[in-house]
Amino acid sequence: GPTEDDLARESISELLGEEMRVDPQLEQELREKFAHMSMTMPERNVKQATLIPSAQALLNPVGTAPGWWVEKDNRIIVAMPGVPREMYRMWENEVQPRLTDRVGGGVLFTRILRVTGMGESTVEEQLDGLIHSTNPTLATYAKTDAVDVRISAKMTTEEEAEKQVVDMEVKVRDILGSHVFGIDSDTLSSVVGDLLQARNQTLGVMESITGGLLSSALTDVKGSSSHFIGGLVTYSTDMKEWMGVPKETVDRYGAVSEQTARAMAHAVRERLGTTFGIGITGVAGPGLQEGKPVGTVHIAVEGPEGVVTSKGPGWRGNRQDNKRYAVLTALNLLRQLLEGTVIPEG
Amino acid sequence: GPTEDDLARESISELLGEEMRVDPQLEQELREKFAHMSMTMPERNVKQATLIPSAQALLNPVGTAPGWWVEKDNRIIVAMPGVPREMYRMWENEVQPRLTDRVGGGVLFTRILRVTGMGESTVEEQLDGLIHSTNPTLATYAKTDAVDVRISAKMTTEEEAEKQVVDMEVKVRDILGSHVFGIDSDTLSSVVGDLLQARNQTLGVMESITGGLLSSALTDVKGSSSHFIGGLVTYSTDMKEWMGVPKETVDRYGAVSEQTARAMAHAVRERLGTTFGIGITGVAGPGLQEGKPVGTVHIAVEGPEGVVTSKGPGWRGNRQDNKRYAVLTALNLLRQLLEGTVIPEG
Repeated sequence: GPTEDDLARESISELLGEEMRVDPQLEQELREKFAHMSMTMPERNVKQATLIPSAQALLNPVGTAPGWWVEKDNRIIVAMPGVPREMYRMWENEVQPRLTDRVGGGVLFTRILRVTGMGESTVEEQLDGLIHSTNPTLATYAKTDAVDVRISAKMTTEEEAEKQVVDMEVKVRDILGSHVFGIDSDTLSSVVGDLLQARNQTLGVMESITGGLLSSALTDVKGSSSHFIGGLVTYSTDMKEWMGVPKETVDRYGAVSEQTARAMAHAVRERLGTTFGIGITGVAGPGLQEGKPVGTVHIAVEGPEGVVTSKGPGWRGNRQDNKRYAVLTALNLLRQLLEGTVIPEG
Repeated sequence: GPTEDDLARESISELLGEEMRVDPQLEQELREKFAHMSMTMPERNVKQATLIPSAQALLNPVGTAPGWWVEKDNRIIVAMPGVPREMYRMWENEVQPRLTDRVGGGVLFTRILRVTGMGESTVEEQLDGLIHSTNPTLATYAKTDAVDVRISAKMTTEEEAEKQVVDMEVKVRDILGSHVFGIDSDTLSSVVGDLLQARNQTLGVMESITGGLLSSALTDVKGSSSHFIGGLVTYSTDMKEWMGVPKETVDRYGAVSEQTARAMAHAVRERLGTTFGIGITGVAGPGLQEGKPVGTVHIAVEGPEGVVTSKGPGWRGNRQDNKRYAVLTALNLLRQLLEGTVIPEG
């Protein structure tokens, strides 16, 4: 990076005894990036355009500082930006493929199965008989939106490696069933979006506990405007009523209740004229609401065939976590309804 | 963690020649955590309840695995869970305070100034004369929602250390002005929320490009239900019109235009009866919309004294980034209006 306390480039140059020079092409690209953002480049940023003879620049389309890929004496040094989202992207798109190329004696094929509704240790316990396999290898990773099961095989050809991975994938899917919602870069939002788009169906949501995060997750997917009609963030009881939730329902059962979640799903579906409507209400915290504990969640999905409901994942930590888990549960409930693995009550 | 490939505890035990044993109290707490989530604890998780004689457990309220604080022969080893949000929290709440206690010969005082509307390298360039200071020290950090300027001083008493930090804070604020929006754990949402709450004022938003993320950011703050009345995620033009945006405005200027942003702010403020209304529209990508490029954003905030507008930060990368930067710009515009650093047109 450009900041004074970042001496990675200087250290590498000194180690290799090579001199850092500003690369004219990198400098021009950097100035264009700043111009594109209608900003003047601070002069110290020119440091980000430096190279040494053994270094190639690694692309960084989401930031200003390119990385360094240094090869000398059969050894490799990689320098990446410290901003996490820039580093993750550079690792995945630039560094990993180059490293894979360097792995001699075979071709690596990898597939990630994305799992919802169980924790990492439960997934690993269920896959106990497979987890010590060596080719393909299996590894689990806890992500914020899912548990990932990564299957990798190395064979002499890509076809052979892929076949190993697919054979293992079948075994894993046999065990985990519909907990597997997608592969590789799939998200619950993208899976739900693809299903709706394929059927030419539409969706509207009315949310309170999640405060807009459910709508936001649904609109993180490109092309979402073709199936997502809109969302109502009814953070006050008054607003729930203005948007069509009967006052009697809220008065009788409380704003945090299955009945109110059902009324929300029904009201938004009717008001926006969508195929499906989701209603979601609960207690985000930190305090009780209507005497109900933090983490209480009620979700309802109404579609042409009827309604399905869920209580969410139970107790969790802070507001952001409660919101996030409630969103994942709602998306998963809609997915299960669309895939036919939960059956609505007429 | 409980997974088989995580051998941190085993390695530490072997290094110190001490035996891992299940601690009965930790085991009971762990089983209660799972019971609280209405889950049965997978038996392999009992590993998370182990200790060695030199280890103390570090609390992990947001996950199941406690950390280890190991002290032996005047050396310290710390083991933390690999899940980032668990690790960050444990580092801040458990590890850092213990390390600070161990730093002999003085008391450390730290304050973070949170900066919006400029990049990290611009902040550092502006603070050039101060950045080489040694006590207090100054360091900048690029976060996803701000640039942090961290000021730390070590003196014999806390009062002296705090005075050093506050003197430096005055100098930094003189240079960065109203770009500094808060300190320590403040966010733009919490600052805006506090201002609204103190004045007994309310807010409603109508958003399209940000797809619910603006509402979600506002509701990440506890107590937000007292000032945030609700949000309308008008992802389709039809929905904008149902919610009170005049069809003529959209037809004439386009859904992505300053005029439509103004009409959205006006409509939500009127419909929800709030003190302030925010309207935000734009092109999230990946394609053009109405011939306007990805990253185009129009924001309007309407209040009792009139309207202020902003065009957002200009070009950015993917959908999520475009949404995030648009949200930060909208929150900052409202903050500036509330603090009187931008003046509305009547």
